This record gives sequence, C-alpha cells and structure tokens, in this order.
Amino acid sequence: MRIGELARRTGVPVPTIKYYSREGLLPAGERTSPNQVAYDDTHVRRLKLIRAMLEVGGLSIAAAREVLAEVDSPHRTVHGALGVAQSAVTRSAPEHGDRADWERAEAEVADLVARHGWSAKPENPGRRSLVQIVVTYRDLDRGDLLVLLDKYATAAGELAAAELATLADAPSTDGKVEGVVLGTVLGDAAMSALRRIAQEDVSSRHSA
Amino acid sequence: MRIGELARRTGVPVPTIKYYSREGLLPAGERTSPNQVAYDDTHVRRLKLIRAMLEVGGLSIAAAREVLAEVDSPHRTVHGALGVAQSAVTRSAPEHGDRADWERAEAEVADLVARHGWSAKPENPGRRSLVQIVVTYRDLDRGDLLVLLDKYATAAGELAAAELATLADAPSTDGKVEGVVLGTVLGDAAMSALRRIAQEDVSSRHSA
Repeated sequence: MRIGELARRTGVPVPTIKYYSREGLLPAGERTSPNQVAYDDTHVRRLKLIRAMLEVGGLSIAAAREVLAEVDSPHRTVHGALGVAQSAVTRSAPEHGDRADWERAEAEVADLVARHGWSAKPENPGRRSLVQIVVTYRDLDRGDLLVLLDKYATAAGELAAAELATLADAPSTDGKVEGVVLGTVLGDAAMSALRRIAQEDVSSRHSA
Repeated sequence: MRIGELARRTGVPVPTIKYYSREGLLPAGERTSPNQVAYDDTHVRRLKLIRAMLEVGGLSIAAAREVLAEVDSPHRTVHGALGVAQSAVTRSAPEHGDRADWERAEAEVADLVARHGWSAKPENPGRRSLVQIVVTYRDLDRGDLLVLLDKYATAAGELAAAELATLADAPSTDGKVEGVVLGTVLGDAAMSALRRIAQEDVSSRHSA
C-alpha cells in the first residue's frame, strides 16, 4: 500500500509516519519506483505498537527506539526484552541528600528484596527508584507510609507470576517478546489506572 | 533564615528556589528589610515536598502547582486532595481509532468496575486511561493480556484499603492530606518499582 493508505488505516498522519521512519522506529517501505514506496501489514502493526508506546505508555522517541531495536533483534529473548522495556519506562532517579541516607535506604530495600525471596540485580531499574522513594519518605518524616511497601511488594510478586503465566500462553517467541514489552509499558499504566478507581471508591465510602 | 541557608539545608540551589517561588510553588518568605527575606522551617519542608513531586513523582510545574493549591486550601479534604492528585499524575488519554471500539471498551471497563463492586465516577482519571489501554490491547490483537486486568483490579482494591488504613493513623488533617498526595504521587512509582524487581525475579527463574 502507499503511504496515504497506511495513514488512513492507522490514523497516523503522513508527516508523523515520515518522522517515525526518520527516527528509526518504523522500517523503511519497499521502493517500487523512483518516487513510490510500498508498505504492508507489518508497517500497520508497527505503527500501532509505536503509538501504544508513545501515547499510552508515555515513552520518549529515544526510549521507544531502544525497545523496538530489542524487539527486532535476531538475538531477542523474553528476559532481554524485559530488561530493555524496564529501563525504558523507569524515570532516572537523581541522588540528593546525604550519602548516609542513601546507604540506609539501600540496606532497607535489600532487606525487603530478601524478605520476599527475590533475586534481583543491584542495577535493576526498579531497585534504584525504590531507594529514592524510601529516602524521600524519610526526608519528609513520613516513615509511616513505608509499611505499605511490603503490601505493594506482595501484590507485585503475585502479579508478576500471573503475568508470566499469561505470557507463556502466547504462541510464538515474537508474541512473548511483544507481550513482555506491552505488559511492562502498558501494565504499569493499567495498574495505576485501577489504583485510581479503587482509591476513589475507598475514599468516597470513608468520607460519606 | 536567609535564602542561602535555605539552599544549604535543602540542597536546592538558590536560582531554583527563586524559580519555584515565581511559579507559585513556594510561599514568599517574610521581608525583614528592603533587600532581605527570611525563610523558616515551613519553607524547608515545602521544598522537600516540591522535590518529591517533581523529581520522584515526575509531575510538571503546573501539575505540582495545582496539587499544592489544594494542600494549602482552607477547604482541603482528604477526598478532594485525592482527586486533584489523581488528575495531576494521570497522563491525558487522546482518543483515536473507531468510536465503536471506544464504546465497547467503555462497556468492558464499566463491567469490570461493577464486578469489583466499585463506585467510581465516569470522570475518574483512571477510568479513561483504562479505556484507552483496553482499546490499545484490542487494536494490537492482544486481547489475551486483558485477563490480567481483573488480577490488577483485585490487587488495587486490597492496596487501596491498606492505604486508607495507614492514612487514618496520621495525626492531623494536614498529615492525612499530605499523605494522600504522597501516596498518589509516590505510591504509583513505588508499585512500579516493586513490579520491576518482582518481574526480574520471575523472569530469571523462568529463563534459567
């Protein structure tokens, strides 16, 4: 199909398609004559995936490019795709405050990881975020809110097991790799969205 | 204290403090002479709260301003603060694709909300995000991943109840209002961080 048809089928405007192509997110179409390029269904699907990552997941162009490079890699694995997707969706955590506060929080996070029987490398992007969150709560004298972390952790462990079980049903490695990317990028958004609904429910009952 | 001391105690540079002040995030200090302004401990705490929202929670200046206006309002309530904080942390969801797809997803989300016995207004920001996520999964033919939403919902309901119970222990309305803001802004980040750690653990066991 021509680029106009690709735009019509995906709802992505032609200049945006050209932009994604220049940025390396969308593979080039097949040049069929000096001024004509043909696209196929793989381009339709890729554009939907790009839109999911950028508009729904909120990834930057650079982060989406890294994730798609892993999806396209001949050496792709589910575990590798998970690592790349996790890095892409995690905000980098600037260290501030006392070094001693960070070390104390790192020890608390290590304890929590051990308590839940988890094996996670020190460079896991969630681990560093969590240290920053613990430092922030303590800095604000809100250690009272830290008790919630174990409850979040228990829920996260159960959900990760359920996610893996669901992914295992996907028919191909491609399907599993794409699933782990979507589960990471959109799964966070879905969990946050459901938290908002549940919190409104609990809060409205309590204040009624 | 002078602005230099405020900067030293919080680690926030003087120009940044002045910027937050101009943007309406930080109340003015008390002018003690034509070219001297005095700050106190409330400014120290407010700067820590601003940093938590911007650097850890990733809010924009405009979103942080709205949340702080609610925190400072004489009419502040826990339920009101929750609504403002929820709107501040939720990405706006542009509608794309067929209207019929959106209506179908809206009905599915309404079913899910009913299934969990929740009361949540149609304008709840999580509700609209969730509709967008459902549309996106279907658009990508990944309806297989939708089974996870009920599991996320069950976990979200249990966590919301635990969050409320923790907040109820805070000694004052101010403490509760601040707690609901932090719980919304940092709680999402904490849950996402713990999901990354749990997912790495599950994935490494599976691929081992």
